[in-house]
Amino acid sequence: MEQVFILKVGGNIIDDEQQLAAFLQAFAEIPGKKILIHGGGKLATRMAAQLQIPQQMVGGRRITDAETLKTVTMVYAGYINKNIVAQLQSFQCNAIGLTGADGNLIQAHQRIHPTIDYGFVGDVDGINTALLQQLLNNNSSVVVAPITHNGNGHLLNTNADTIAQEIATALAPHYAVSLIYLFEKAGVLMDVNDDTSVVPIITPQIYAQLKAQGIIADGMLPKLENAFTALQKGVQRVIIGKANVLSELLKGTSGTTLTSGT
Amino acid sequence: MEQVFILKVGGNIIDDEQQLAAFLQAFAEIPGKKILIHGGGKLATRMAAQLQIPQQMVGGRRITDAETLKTVTMVYAGYINKNIVAQLQSFQCNAIGLTGADGNLIQAHQRIHPTIDYGFVGDVDGINTALLQQLLNNNSSVVVAPITHNGNGHLLNTNADTIAQEIATALAPHYAVSLIYLFEKAGVLMDVNDDTSVVPIITPQIYAQLKAQGIIADGMLPKLENAFTALQKGVQRVIIGKANVLSELLKGTSGTTLTSGT
Repeated sequence: MEQVFILKVGGNIIDDEQQLAAFLQAFAEIPGKKILIHGGGKLATRMAAQLQIPQQMVGGRRITDAETLKTVTMVYAGYINKNIVAQLQSFQCNAIGLTGADGNLIQAHQRIHPTIDYGFVGDVDGINTALLQQLLNNNSSVVVAPITHNGNGHLLNTNADTIAQEIATALAPHYAVSLIYLFEKAGVLMDVNDDTSVVPIITPQIYAQLKAQGIIADGMLPKLENAFTALQKGVQRVIIGKANVLSELLKGTSGTTLTSGT
Repeated sequence: MEQVFILKVGGNIIDDEQQLAAFLQAFAEIPGKKILIHGGGKLATRMAAQLQIPQQMVGGRRITDAETLKTVTMVYAGYINKNIVAQLQSFQCNAIGLTGADGNLIQAHQRIHPTIDYGFVGDVDGINTALLQQLLNNNSSVVVAPITHNGNGHLLNTNADTIAQEIATALAPHYAVSLIYLFEKAGVLMDVNDDTSVVPIITPQIYAQLKAQGIIADGMLPKLENAFTALQKGVQRVIIGKANVLSELLKGTSGTTLTSGT
C-alpha cells in the first residue's frame, strides 16, 4: 500500500514563527502524500482577551461559548490555517487548507455530557475519506484546522489530536498510514526530566510494562491510549517526538515509534 | 459547453444574518456547477476597531497594513468563509471554502503604485483553473474568500469583484460562464432613485448610449467597464441585481443582463 504521513503539530510550534517556518519547510520536503493537522496555540487566547471574551474553564478545558467559537474559527481556520498554507506554497508544497465543514470533511455532533455543558465542542462522527483521497491523488497536501461542523449549519471546536487520529484510522484501509504527533518532548521518556532517555520503540507488551512501572503516567497516558487505539484500527505506526527533528522521526532515528508489535 | 455560475456577494448581504441564510439557500438550489465569491462586510471593520487597529484610508480605500491583513484574514477566510460553507452544507450543497493560497488558486503580487503604499493589497496574476475544474467536476461548489498569496509565503488582500471577474474569464474557455454581481440595487437604473427603472439588457451599443446620456456614471462605471471586459474575454453574460431575487436574475426576469450583443 502507498504511504500517507499524517502529522499533528501543536501550539508550541504554531506560536514560534521561526520554529514554525523550519517545521513547514521540513514538512514540505516529505515525499509523497501528507496531511497536517494543526492546533491553536496562544493566539486564540490572546485574541479572546483582546476582544474581552471571558474564558470559562471546567476541569482544565475551555468552554466554547458562541463568542469563543467565533474567535477560534477566525484564528484557527483563518489566520493560522491560511498562513501555514501560504508558507507551504512558498516551499513548493501544494497545500490546501480545510476545516471539517469544507467538502463535509469531518462530520461531528455537539458534545453531550450529563453534567457539563461544553458549549460548541464537537465529537467526530465521520471522515470524508473520498475527498482526502481525491486531493492526495491530485498531489495536494491537506492542512486541517480543528473546526468541524454538525451538518445543520453550525461549526464546532474539536480537539486536533482527535482529528489526527480519526483521519489516520479512516485512511488506514486505503494507505500505509504513519501518524506523527509532534510535541515539546523528544518522545516517551524513561525519566521525564531527561530528554535523552527516549524509549525508541513501544509495543503493546512494552507499553503494559512501562505502565505497570509507573513510567507512563499523567498527560502521556491518554496520548498513548489513543495511539494504541489507532494501531488497533489499522494505522501502521504512531511516532511521537519533536518537530525540529522531523526527518529523523520519520526514519526512526529519533522519537518514540509505537507499533502493534506484529 | 456546460454552464458555470459565478456569483459575487458583498457586505450588504454578508452583514445580515437572515438575508444571508435566504441567499445561501437560493445559491444551494442553483443546479449544476457554481462558485461563490464573498466580500467582507462590516465585521472586519468592527473587529479592527475592537482590536484597536487604526484604519488608514487613502482615496476612499483602506490601506492594508500587517495588522489589518491579519484581521481580514481572520474575518474573511475564517469566520465568514467557514460559516457560509457550514450553512451551504446544511442546504445539501457540498461547498468547499478556499482562499487564493489554497491549492495555489489565485496567484497575486503586492500592488505597486508610484505614490501610494497600499500595503498588503494583491493584484491578480493568475487563476488555477485546473483546481476549479477538478472540484466542480467532483460536484463541489467553491466558496472563495478575497485573500490571495504571492507565492513567497505572504497573504494579500484582494478586491472580491476583481476575483470574481478573474475567475470568470479564466473559466470562459472551458464553460459557458454566467457572472452574477449581487448588490444593493435592482440592476442598472435609468433613474438612480427609482428601483423599478431597471435596464433589462445592455449591449455595448446600449452601453455607449447610456454613457453618452450620463445615465451611467460614478460607482456604476467601473463595474460596467469590468463587466464588458469580462464579456470581451469570453464570459457569456454578466448579470447585476439583488441577492433576494436570485432565481429571477438567472432567468433574466429581474436585474440587468449584460451581453456582448453578438
